[in-house]
Amino acid sequence: MGVDPGLTRCGVALVEGGVGRPLELVAAGVIRTPADMEASQRLLRIHDGLEEWCTTYRPDQVAIERVFAQHQRNTFTGTAQAAGLAMVIGARHGLPVDLHTPSEVKAAISGSGRADKAQVGLMVARILRLQEAPRPADAADAVALAICQIWRGGADRRLQEAAAAQRAARGGRIPRSWKDVTR
Amino acid sequence: MGVDPGLTRCGVALVEGGVGRPLELVAAGVIRTPADMEASQRLLRIHDGLEEWCTTYRPDQVAIERVFAQHQRNTFTGTAQAAGLAMVIGARHGLPVDLHTPSEVKAAISGSGRADKAQVGLMVARILRLQEAPRPADAADAVALAICQIWRGGADRRLQEAAAAQRAARGGRIPRSWKDVTR
Repeated sequence: MGVDPGLTRCGVALVEGGVGRPLELVAAGVIRTPADMEASQRLLRIHDGLEEWCTTYRPDQVAIERVFAQHQRNTFTGTAQAAGLAMVIGARHGLPVDLHTPSEVKAAISGSGRADKAQVGLMVARILRLQEAPRPADAADAVALAICQIWRGGADRRLQEAAAAQRAARGGRIPRSWKDVTR
Repeated sequence: MGVDPGLTRCGVALVEGGVGRPLELVAAGVIRTPADMEASQRLLRIHDGLEEWCTTYRPDQVAIERVFAQHQRNTFTGTAQAAGLAMVIGARHGLPVDLHTPSEVKAAISGSGRADKAQVGLMVARILRLQEAPRPADAADAVALAICQIWRGGADRRLQEAAAAQRAARGGRIPRSWKDVTR
């Protein structure tokens, strides 16, 4: 399950498949909340919508776009909060939750971290053998996240876990040089 | 119920009373999550902790500190996400949810928006007739938020609702001048 977090439009998509097998689009859509609705009510609607997607489609992992405070200042708080809800829902369902930056997603899908929206949409359609990219753009972005999760998987998470295990084995000491790591 | 949102320490407090009556501290504490825990697990723990407070104490309104992206960049995303969880829980329980800035809280408690932590703690203790301020500081901040909510109430929210109703009555048109508003 891919989630492109947002308060006005939160993209959600389910993609089935694995590395080396063709991918299938199961579902893609958007959870919308009206801008004039009270913020806590909007978040509740996003939460309940994501919960419904998760219960309906029973994904085995969740990929969410990693958000950065320096971009889109006006909408950042709501976007971060929507992402947080997706994280909680993934954790509550006992699923691995991974965050991917927009450029990681673009690179996984199109081979370039600087691909524009149209190029990503085109590649998403080609990968899934669709006539055209899912709409709106937030749904297509969620599909791209789900594909990125299948292809890159939790590679970053597994690396971090391995590094944490290694640190723990060294008694939490931070290595002074590469020799410390391999010793 | 006052919530001082945070990922490492999320302050929660229950204060009972009303304007013109003495206030009573019902409970104050902190939900902690370890820094080396995965982010989605930390958020789930905050969510479940806040839900437990809410189910145990059945507050009739929720006050949460309003967070700003320009401050504390490193921790902002987690803080905003914890605040979002508190908002969702308030909304799910059908409670009014109000956000207060730190300076609104300080002004409501101490008469000055620039009071420091020690002054706020001192005033909180005095208002609630305690020997000393609740600890840690995050719990005291949550108590201050709860007091602010009782005294200021949802004044801002009610003003916004009145303004929204007025806008709706004008057909959603944004007034060009104050004359538009009073016409």
